[in-house]
Amino acid sequence: MKALLIVAHGSRRAASNDEIRELTQRVTAQAGDSYNLVDCAFLELAEPSIPDGIQCCIDRGADEVIVLPYFLSAGRHVAEDIPNDVKIKQDEHPGIRIRIAPYVGGLDGIAGLMLQAAG
Amino acid sequence: MKALLIVAHGSRRAASNDEIRELTQRVTAQAGDSYNLVDCAFLELAEPSIPDGIQCCIDRGADEVIVLPYFLSAGRHVAEDIPNDVKIKQDEHPGIRIRIAPYVGGLDGIAGLMLQAAG
Repeated sequence: MKALLIVAHGSRRAASNDEIRELTQRVTAQAGDSYNLVDCAFLELAEPSIPDGIQCCIDRGADEVIVLPYFLSAGRHVAEDIPNDVKIKQDEHPGIRIRIAPYVGGLDGIAGLMLQAAG
Repeated sequence: MKALLIVAHGSRRAASNDEIRELTQRVTAQAGDSYNLVDCAFLELAEPSIPDGIQCCIDRGADEVIVLPYFLSAGRHVAEDIPNDVKIKQDEHPGIRIRIAPYVGGLDGIAGLMLQAAG
């Protein structure tokens, strides 16, 4: 059973966190059969944390968790903080496959999407 | 003459600002005939500022500037700070059309792009 966990920075502004939750719903709607479960978690300032989010996927039956960093640049959060959180859970659950997908800002497709947005 | 100005937050980390400049190159390469000019500017912590970036487009001959917020959530920066910067230049140059495109995180296409990234 395969889970997709969208991880965002988290904000003191509740509406920004809700926006991530709404995006998670949109991704869920478009995921089709690709994932059995799509959820979100936050690096800081909002709940659930990334380790708790991964644990929740495992508790719901996932044996594969893809962690997708919803970040625009490859800073410390993407390079260190998220991998550190993932390692904690991977060490706890060696039988579960946990993989970090490329972060959103680094995708080739982002340039095309921006041109589409600009109209 | 039509210009696309990608506006990012800006970072103390030079590599993050360089990443925006590289993205701007990728967008330029994909823009084809849609834009005569593609450039980037920063809300804070990096140069050029948004007003300076808009001015630079005008100085290079643009009579239409599309400002594209490279942001993931509709917080204060997207809702207030960028429109305020744009208004300063619009008031200075009433003959130039300056338009703010939807911010990246709010686009329908972002969900599909994320699923593609997750693989």
